[in-house]
Amino acid sequence: MKYNGKKYTSIWFEKGIIKIIDQTRLPEEFRIIELRNSEDIIYAINNMQVRGAPLIGVTAAYGVYFALKESGDNYQSFFNKISRIKESRPTAVNLEYAVDLICDYALESNDLDDQIERSLDKADEFYRNDMNACKKIGENGYFILQKVAKANEVNILTHCNAGWLATVDFGTASAPVFEGVNRGMDIHVWIDETRPRNQGGKLTAWEYYHEKIPHTIITDNAGGHIMQNGDVDIVITGADRIASNGDTANKIGTYLKALAAYDNKVPFYIAAPISTIDFKIKSGKDIPIEIRSEDEIKFSGKTPLNHSLSPALNHGFDVTPAKFITGFITEKGIFTPNQLKSLKNEKI
Amino acid sequence: MKYNGKKYTSIWFEKGIIKIIDQTRLPEEFRIIELRNSEDIIYAINNMQVRGAPLIGVTAAYGVYFALKESGDNYQSFFNKISRIKESRPTAVNLEYAVDLICDYALESNDLDDQIERSLDKADEFYRNDMNACKKIGENGYFILQKVAKANEVNILTHCNAGWLATVDFGTASAPVFEGVNRGMDIHVWIDETRPRNQGGKLTAWEYYHEKIPHTIITDNAGGHIMQNGDVDIVITGADRIASNGDTANKIGTYLKALAAYDNKVPFYIAAPISTIDFKIKSGKDIPIEIRSEDEIKFSGKTPLNHSLSPALNHGFDVTPAKFITGFITEKGIFTPNQLKSLKNEKI
Repeated sequence: MKYNGKKYTSIWFEKGIIKIIDQTRLPEEFRIIELRNSEDIIYAINNMQVRGAPLIGVTAAYGVYFALKESGDNYQSFFNKISRIKESRPTAVNLEYAVDLICDYALESNDLDDQIERSLDKADEFYRNDMNACKKIGENGYFILQKVAKANEVNILTHCNAGWLATVDFGTASAPVFEGVNRGMDIHVWIDETRPRNQGGKLTAWEYYHEKIPHTIITDNAGGHIMQNGDVDIVITGADRIASNGDTANKIGTYLKALAAYDNKVPFYIAAPISTIDFKIKSGKDIPIEIRSEDEIKFSGKTPLNHSLSPALNHGFDVTPAKFITGFITEKGIFTPNQLKSLKNEKI
Repeated sequence: MKYNGKKYTSIWFEKGIIKIIDQTRLPEEFRIIELRNSEDIIYAINNMQVRGAPLIGVTAAYGVYFALKESGDNYQSFFNKISRIKESRPTAVNLEYAVDLICDYALESNDLDDQIERSLDKADEFYRNDMNACKKIGENGYFILQKVAKANEVNILTHCNAGWLATVDFGTASAPVFEGVNRGMDIHVWIDETRPRNQGGKLTAWEYYHEKIPHTIITDNAGGHIMQNGDVDIVITGADRIASNGDTANKIGTYLKALAAYDNKVPFYIAAPISTIDFKIKSGKDIPIEIRSEDEIKFSGKTPLNHSLSPALNHGFDVTPAKFITGFITEKGIFTPNQLKSLKNEKI
């Protein structure tokens, strides 16, 4: 998508190096940085220079390629690196999924050079698949927007950033927005700022500003009130991990918006590629929830936002029970929570 | 209550001058400022140097005294000032209530000097009544805490600041906490930071820190997750205006916490003096909701928190429907939403 009128993806491979947009610096500064080895990959994921479940997956995929190249025939070193990549963030299942996918494919060969080549090929394919999945999510989601539109007008509420910066391109929750706008739909998006890291107010707002899509930042507290006022036609968020029963882990606060949507009869959709579904777990109870530094709550850079001598607790995600989710917008179509199980053997 | 071990009230009258703690500077700086006339009163309320429905009421009460003294026998000037005081914040009913109470009492006399004296007497009485009401709210709320306690331990979640800084002393939602701690109860309080002005993370956390009451700041997004985890026994918030049917306007985001409490079978209480009930209005639909500057969302001082080129919308309050409220903790006892009407002719 566009920044200052020029097209970008959030990540790309160029002459043996991964390039990313440093998302910790947006929106104040647009800086492209280079990841040259698996340590850079781990650092970028852990410090959220890249974030968003699908993009974490794609970044980690290239991490496998770096790890193989660096380790040579020292496979113990390779598997140590692989473990550390997997542990760089705990909640998004796409990370584990991507690493396993690339490893399995690469290690089908017994020749190191061939393994390295295969890992890069598969990472590239994974990259392209992510773009294609998001494009399809946009097309499928567009039909949902048509259903809820009033005279071609739709007010969408979203939480966090599930935009193109959270994927390679197009985004998940944002893909139907881009598709709808391209097709002439009159769309306005309410963006939860999404404390404590404000990925909504910093990243999603920045994306829509540069795509010239009408939007308004609100506090996380305000979504319920705006729904009570009848100003929201649909809520769409992304997901970090979806259990087999449809319970969905996403950025902390998503659950509260699902409750408000339910109370105000506003449809609540999750937009995600089916690689985000973790068929190994039955319900949301089994999803690990990351706890991040309390300083993310207490400070913005060096500016204190709260009483700095008090303790704070910083859960990164919560789980929205399936009963509050109207449906899942995926690259394979729209599914209710009950229908997710049918996707178990679907090729991604 | 205490700051650095020394007792304070949030406001006091001293030698013809009102003194307040400037709440826009807390917790970084503890600064006492002087309000010497009705303009100072209006400025302090409008700019939230004083805030919290009960404290706004008490401050405005002294504003009537200043307005009378300044206007002399120019009653048109007096009533202009009174209107401007009433309009300094729109949502808290205590403001209008207090101004009318002091005006009515003062103007029962026809003599200007007597009117001035009566306005000061009545403001002083209103000040004392606020303290007494909060003390009683603490005693009444303590019995609710005993009901929800597990082996003398209670985890409370609160939103915004309904502490002593929001009243003259003791607070509303905080009064049962102070009472419980005094009586040896083992209390921990989860404090929503309460964006955009962070009155929870700045003021409530500061209060509990200086009273040595265990507490933890969380983002507004996290309360639902913490309730799902079983870590909240009761939610207690204050109120800015309560309609006759029990619908309650309070700081934006309160509604979301009420929904989460309802979904997790956590009792949800409003603590407020009965002067916060507006018997003139039937339901929450009639409560005016203040919209404040978008800069409160986009910046903290000069630090940008969100994409500053994007628009933001800043509703200050929302309305929690009565059906989600377990009860009201008042100075006259505990009431369900349905029982509120019985208080209509109660002397405050």
